[in-house]
Amino acid sequence: MAAHAISPLAPKETPKLPAIAGARLATGHSGMRYKNRDDLLLIEFAPGTRVAGLFTRSSMPGAPVDWCRKQLAGGAARGLVVNAGIANVFTGKAGSDATKATAAGAAKALGAKPGEIFLASTGVIGQILPAEKIVAQLPAMQKALAGDAKPSDSRASDSWAAAARAIMTTDTFPKLASAQCRIDGKLVTINGIAKGSGMIAPDMATMLAFLATDAKLPAETLQAILKAANNQSFNCLTVDGDTSTSDTVLLFATGKAGNTPHVKAADKRLADFRKALTAVMADLAQQVARDGEGAQKFVTVSVSGARSDASARVIARAIANSPLVKTAIAGADANWGRIVMAVGKSGEPADRDKLVVKLGDRAVTARGMVRPDHDEAAATAHFKSNDVRIGVDVGVGKGKAVVWTCDLTHGYIDINADYRS
Amino acid sequence: MAAHAISPLAPKETPKLPAIAGARLATGHSGMRYKNRDDLLLIEFAPGTRVAGLFTRSSMPGAPVDWCRKQLAGGAARGLVVNAGIANVFTGKAGSDATKATAAGAAKALGAKPGEIFLASTGVIGQILPAEKIVAQLPAMQKALAGDAKPSDSRASDSWAAAARAIMTTDTFPKLASAQCRIDGKLVTINGIAKGSGMIAPDMATMLAFLATDAKLPAETLQAILKAANNQSFNCLTVDGDTSTSDTVLLFATGKAGNTPHVKAADKRLADFRKALTAVMADLAQQVARDGEGAQKFVTVSVSGARSDASARVIARAIANSPLVKTAIAGADANWGRIVMAVGKSGEPADRDKLVVKLGDRAVTARGMVRPDHDEAAATAHFKSNDVRIGVDVGVGKGKAVVWTCDLTHGYIDINADYRS
Repeated sequence: MAAHAISPLAPKETPKLPAIAGARLATGHSGMRYKNRDDLLLIEFAPGTRVAGLFTRSSMPGAPVDWCRKQLAGGAARGLVVNAGIANVFTGKAGSDATKATAAGAAKALGAKPGEIFLASTGVIGQILPAEKIVAQLPAMQKALAGDAKPSDSRASDSWAAAARAIMTTDTFPKLASAQCRIDGKLVTINGIAKGSGMIAPDMATMLAFLATDAKLPAETLQAILKAANNQSFNCLTVDGDTSTSDTVLLFATGKAGNTPHVKAADKRLADFRKALTAVMADLAQQVARDGEGAQKFVTVSVSGARSDASARVIARAIANSPLVKTAIAGADANWGRIVMAVGKSGEPADRDKLVVKLGDRAVTARGMVRPDHDEAAATAHFKSNDVRIGVDVGVGKGKAVVWTCDLTHGYIDINADYRS
Repeated sequence: MAAHAISPLAPKETPKLPAIAGARLATGHSGMRYKNRDDLLLIEFAPGTRVAGLFTRSSMPGAPVDWCRKQLAGGAARGLVVNAGIANVFTGKAGSDATKATAAGAAKALGAKPGEIFLASTGVIGQILPAEKIVAQLPAMQKALAGDAKPSDSRASDSWAAAARAIMTTDTFPKLASAQCRIDGKLVTINGIAKGSGMIAPDMATMLAFLATDAKLPAETLQAILKAANNQSFNCLTVDGDTSTSDTVLLFATGKAGNTPHVKAADKRLADFRKALTAVMADLAQQVARDGEGAQKFVTVSVSGARSDASARVIARAIANSPLVKTAIAGADANWGRIVMAVGKSGEPADRDKLVVKLGDRAVTARGMVRPDHDEAAATAHFKSNDVRIGVDVGVGKGKAVVWTCDLTHGYIDINADYRS
């Protein structure tokens, strides 16, 4: 498998994340698929950590998704083990045995119960996961756990970046984000990492994303806040319309910030936390689009005037997943007719004669046709930028939605005609 | 716009179609977009010809679709005018004026009423159709009408091939098919032509297809038979999941065969006709897949064991439209895990542990994992052929469906990053 050039849309440098009290990280190397890089992540959480999670709605979920769904009912977490290279999907009883063995190994290394261990795997579908190769590395990884990052401690402050790197597959850069907020005046930190590049079309949750915070909140509250934040972040994302069998978003809260643990997710004293969590997740989701397989341009599709927000999202996804729209963007051909086509095929209500298509800040259409003042050169210039914004008002209501995606280039074909995922 | 190499999946030679009594054809050159080739088609039908039609379900239909829908109520046809190069879609009042002007010009040339003229346009969306360039050619085209093909008359026998060529856009070969059948012992002929290569994802009807027969049948009967045949032909087709704004299938019946005009579409005396029409349409639909933009391989996706036939079709389309499945086929990587992914993302019921994926004639999976006897080399060899067959049984019912498609290659990107459609 060839290594691919780093996305031109990658951040200029990898951010250094602050510590999350109660969370320590280590990476390791299993040798199951990747050479010369770490492919394992272990995170240890302090006793009392609460967890929330969202998973793929695929009817073919991987064994780790089955495992996490089951353990989530307990609401308590002490560890997370992630491997890259083999997804442990469509592996029957052998797959479920591999999750049990991995959880047992991690529980032993951390002095926890297997039901407090959460798991995720990413990579090739259909291959048996060699759990023994993971379990063999866990004791050494436990000894290497770090996370008490201070700006002066470069090793520790790199533990989140190392973690983000260890879970990559076709990703060309590690994806990290962080935010701080206050609950009742107490400072709370939220860190997140994500992986994803292809097979990205969120449906409930998407790809792998792991979030940790020192906030003190009950599991049910975390779950409700996570779901709402997900709807405004990972669910706004598509690379290729192909929903993964492994999509997992987990949020761990160690409780070390010492805030009052408000129970109601909608409590206004949690507003700052909700906003910060959504910002971290939206940042990560946009990074996934910026690292979409073969991506040369980041694309924001905004739909308004729809029958409902849900309808607006269907229309935005129809545009964002249209291979003809995505190739037009790749070719810097400001072919707004293909956007009209995609609205038309979405199956959602739209008024042809009120439809307004915007490229960047300029409206292109009015009264069911191109505007007389349409400036083709300006539209082309906008499509030549690497931050393309498409706006559509469909003229039938007040629903709106935003979807982030990327263009469809030769790079996508290169990567996927020879990568086995 | 670069000309693209002829699809490797094209038929070895262009078929010569027999005459349809009561139908005469001519092609012409408008100069509106294409140089050095005909881009206009005129077909004259004898008085008494009945017509049926199916159109795109896009909410952004082109002006010619609006026109045909309106005229179809009359059930009578005397002429068909088709142009390639400009689709007359999203053109507001100017677009509807262009359809009126074209129909008026054709009616005058043929001595018919404008309401008996059917129209179709294909090409760029959003540009105003210069109807005057079409109308100017119609008198000369009327004088050149031919269609009384005999095997010995090479000029006449080429009129259907010339017609199929005149309506091409990114197509690399003309698409023709023909069949003969009997109604009450009377010989009946059915000819069909189609165009389509990209923006192909049928939803009710798809792309442009024109069928003519000398059968004598009422318009309502034709409509019912056409709809059923369409469901087993053009609706089984996808190239890129992008439904066109111009999809049109029209069936004209001149009545010259002199058969008894049975009224009930389900009449068993029409069984042979229904079968022949379906065969012609399925042949044309498969030709469109074989000429899919950038296609190097023809792909048949067969789904069984679904909750219903409709559910099976959704699953088959999820597989056939998956960019990851299509690129795996392009790269001859027999990556059946991506097929599992596509079934999973379809949203339709499927039993992971009963799922059977077949590549060619060989089953790859059983009991929720790969079969121990899976032969990777044989699977790869099948994916290297240019006639790839994917079978899936989802294990929950008796529904089944077939979808035809093609692979996703660099050719698709080449064509669509620089073609304005």
